[in-house]
Amino acid sequence: MISCDSKKENKAPTQDALENIFARKSVRKYLPEPVEKEKLEMLLKAGMAAPSGKDVRPWEFVVVDDRAVLDSLAAELPYAKMLKGAPLAIVVCGDKSRSSYWYIDCSAATQNILLAAEALGLGAVWTATYPYPERMEAVRKYVDLPDHIGSLCVIPVGYPAMPHNPKNKWDETKVHYNKW
Amino acid sequence: MISCDSKKENKAPTQDALENIFARKSVRKYLPEPVEKEKLEMLLKAGMAAPSGKDVRPWEFVVVDDRAVLDSLAAELPYAKMLKGAPLAIVVCGDKSRSSYWYIDCSAATQNILLAAEALGLGAVWTATYPYPERMEAVRKYVDLPDHIGSLCVIPVGYPAMPHNPKNKWDETKVHYNKW
Repeated sequence: MISCDSKKENKAPTQDALENIFARKSVRKYLPEPVEKEKLEMLLKAGMAAPSGKDVRPWEFVVVDDRAVLDSLAAELPYAKMLKGAPLAIVVCGDKSRSSYWYIDCSAATQNILLAAEALGLGAVWTATYPYPERMEAVRKYVDLPDHIGSLCVIPVGYPAMPHNPKNKWDETKVHYNKW
Repeated sequence: MISCDSKKENKAPTQDALENIFARKSVRKYLPEPVEKEKLEMLLKAGMAAPSGKDVRPWEFVVVDDRAVLDSLAAELPYAKMLKGAPLAIVVCGDKSRSSYWYIDCSAATQNILLAAEALGLGAVWTATYPYPERMEAVRKYVDLPDHIGSLCVIPVGYPAMPHNPKNKWDETKVHYNKW
């Protein structure tokens, strides 16, 4: 166990791991309350605990809590209007010079962040920027990304404004045995 | 809570959700014991609990426990030699006709499967087939994928042959605030 062991750090335990996977849902409305620094750090640690091809870890994270930047991103990203009401966002980026499939590794990191948010009582949602050039350019402009850095998504984060039920997406017809 | 609630189904609880994220590691050596049907189903349910762009859920899963197929894949996939000693594998696939970025949604599903495996005491590892044409063709051949289905990865699954420690990959230099 590394430093994120909730018992060792005397932190409140989170829910059962499997239940947490099934409880995760996309949350698009948030309370105005800020997200605690400790929780933000846990989200970032969770992101970096993802696997990556050849263990290259091409991910980079831009934490955005500047109201002007959040609002500018909300204005330019068609499916991220909820940034206008979010106290925080994490932009998940990847270093294209270090991995040609950075967006795959960053997807695993993003899923870890979404699950950690659920575990911490936070709400979050994956708003895609990759593979859309105009969205990626908007992010590049507002958070000053250098040319070798691409953005996979923007994750607004906050305390959910209302309770949500997760979807049950189980579909047996999607399982095949040994041969398609 | 949906049907995977461990309490309602009277199943053993798994570990704390955050601890599980940090405890996940790549496991490449397995005991010969088979994976129980209930645990396999839980892995597949976890995969399908992932988010997907526009909720399209382009994923499809091929469960492989046929020794001949596992061995053929081991022979042709350069980074999946451990399939030779694995009792089971899940091939995570996506329907290209339903989503042009199926590999992103399937990456989130794959991460959920890896985390569920950790929660269930199983060992697993992401062996990439996408974006490598020759690896994707090998998978297509041995599990008979139709043309519109692509494979993202093959996940060998089994009980770990030895204990493993997770890596601590936390790196503060990868966190940026508001601007790069």
